Amino acid sequence: MNDTFLKACRGEKVDYTPIWIMRQAGRYLAEYRAVRGKADFLKMCKTPELAAEVTLQPVDILNVDAAILFSDILIPCEAMGQGLDFHEGKGPLLSPAIRDKDTVNKLFVPDPEDTMKFVMDAIRILRKELAGRVPLIGFAGAPFTTATYMIEGGTSKNFLNTKRMVYENPELYKSLMDKITATITLYLKAQISAGAQAVQIFDTWGGIFSPSDFRDHALSYVKKIISDLKQWMLAERREAVPVIYFVGESAGLLEEIKTCGADVFGVDWRINLDDAIRRLGGDVVVQGNMDPLAMFLPKEKIEQRVKDVLNRATSARGHIFNLGHGVVPETPRDNVIALVEMVHRLSRK
Amino acid sequence: MNDTFLKACRGEKVDYTPIWIMRQAGRYLAEYRAVRGKADFLKMCKTPELAAEVTLQPVDILNVDAAILFSDILIPCEAMGQGLDFHEGKGPLLSPAIRDKDTVNKLFVPDPEDTMKFVMDAIRILRKELAGRVPLIGFAGAPFTTATYMIEGGTSKNFLNTKRMVYENPELYKSLMDKITATITLYLKAQISAGAQAVQIFDTWGGIFSPSDFRDHALSYVKKIISDLKQWMLAERREAVPVIYFVGESAGLLEEIKTCGADVFGVDWRINLDDAIRRLGGDVVVQGNMDPLAMFLPKEKIEQRVKDVLNRATSARGHIFNLGHGVVPETPRDNVIALVEMVHRLSRK
Repeated sequence: MNDTFLKACRGEKVDYTPIWIMRQAGRYLAEYRAVRGKADFLKMCKTPELAAEVTLQPVDILNVDAAILFSDILIPCEAMGQGLDFHEGKGPLLSPAIRDKDTVNKLFVPDPEDTMKFVMDAIRILRKELAGRVPLIGFAGAPFTTATYMIEGGTSKNFLNTKRMVYENPELYKSLMDKITATITLYLKAQISAGAQAVQIFDTWGGIFSPSDFRDHALSYVKKIISDLKQWMLAERREAVPVIYFVGESAGLLEEIKTCGADVFGVDWRINLDDAIRRLGGDVVVQGNMDPLAMFLPKEKIEQRVKDVLNRATSARGHIFNLGHGVVPETPRDNVIALVEMVHRLSRK
Repeated sequence: MNDTFLKACRGEKVDYTPIWIMRQAGRYLAEYRAVRGKADFLKMCKTPELAAEVTLQPVDILNVDAAILFSDILIPCEAMGQGLDFHEGKGPLLSPAIRDKDTVNKLFVPDPEDTMKFVMDAIRILRKELAGRVPLIGFAGAPFTTATYMIEGGTSKNFLNTKRMVYENPELYKSLMDKITATITLYLKAQISAGAQAVQIFDTWGGIFSPSDFRDHALSYVKKIISDLKQWMLAERREAVPVIYFVGESAGLLEEIKTCGADVFGVDWRINLDDAIRRLGGDVVVQGNMDPLAMFLPKEKIEQRVKDVLNRATSARGHIFNLGHGVVPETPRDNVIALVEMVHRLSRK
């Protein structure tokens, strides 16, 4: 049983730095594309056997120290009553866009074992199939990042509609965020109950806010989720499941982020990791932070960067190696395999 | 003669905090849309009288402390030999995309008074029409930000082609950057010779890099431009024209940016201004940094934010108020007018 990842999450001593990679189950793997050829993206998410199959691929191929459930952060939006579709090359489409009281009111807080049972089923299959080989990470989008998709109706350039709602109609925004927060809380509890051994909360778009807006309109809801999860785990006498909070473009926000209550802080590549650790207060566990596109470098240069990240991470209580964002489809597969080997080799004392 | 902006750029004592607004000549003004109705975007850029007309509008309407030349950072790309077109709603299209030795070799370093004479003509008209009312800012894209458009052939989501060239073919990237850097240097000298009283270098996309990549693949070229400009101004015994360097999403990069040699550092809203000033080393002149979308707040909340920014700016040697990015077309015009009034009123000692 490889529990190096979980030990690192808890800030315990480890023999080497564990690594997993955001979007490690993805299109850069021919094995993934083979499954994807048989089913569209949403069908893969909703078919527990397929989701489990692609989740396991990078564990076998890359030798990473954790599996992360194959799914999508927008699954709860559909469960809340919004239409969800993925169009090839155009990204997700959510309809109707949630921009007024009427559309907010029509959303509900679903029972995850009812509307998102396929996710929990995938987790149950995976725990059996992994058989303790590596831990399984569950995940959800943070309420703010989820809300941007729901409000914009998809991806966005400058998040005009989202910010207009925040600034022009804060009550409406809060009522939407309260529903999303309740949904995500139940969803993460269900994932943990089904067997997720760590959970990551993705706040990919948190970095579009100023620090005070981020604190008031994004972080406050994440704090509530983490605090609810921690209390629930205590009350249920469950083993504590580490919570990882990842915020994209967070360099200016780290002094706010450090108060969120997470066990692990995910950091992107736009800041040096030692600098991030210092801004987070020093005695923290961090996850990151190589530029995903640096995977196009020749292997010897990747190795230099791995050394640099490992070196900068020594000031933290714990470190989990990762890229600063998802690995992109065009990435040379060999370089990803090499990355995992390098992290393991170079971090061994 | 209102020279408050230039004084602030030089870190001299001022009676109030000067303000100008990125993209202040823009679609949020009906007066701009009226001109735009008569000519497409590129034609406006290339017709000195029209460019001058819309440049003057915000000076009259908003009472800002500086005019910034109406133009586009991609003008030099066309002058270098790449096709440039703007499609409504799709952003700029540059063709062919510059991705190999052949396309780089075909680019040339143009004489700006030949291929971009319309820009210098607009500056000459504006200096006459402004008649010292407020100073005129010229500008150019930084080499890296310019290169992203040239390599991607337009805007981009993750700058895959740009970063691949940086990582996979650094020699090719350098040969492209050397040509762009030479072009931008000549272009800014021509603008200054024509009458620009300050220049801003826009590195909108600098923040997509890790700090070391930013330093090696973006900042080094900006340093060269600034150093060349400063030496040239000395050699020509010209009055020193302040150089403003603006980098988007720069929170993690400020410790690198502070070495660039600029007189003024433009900061976006993703970091608190006092934090940015500290990271820039304290004794600096900064420009910024309200979220452009905060212009959708009710006026009393905008006023709170103006106070907050002014308050945080007191630790700097000098401050020029600005938004952290361009004002968006949907912005309520009244709020922009109110913003300028607030900055002037609230900053007066």
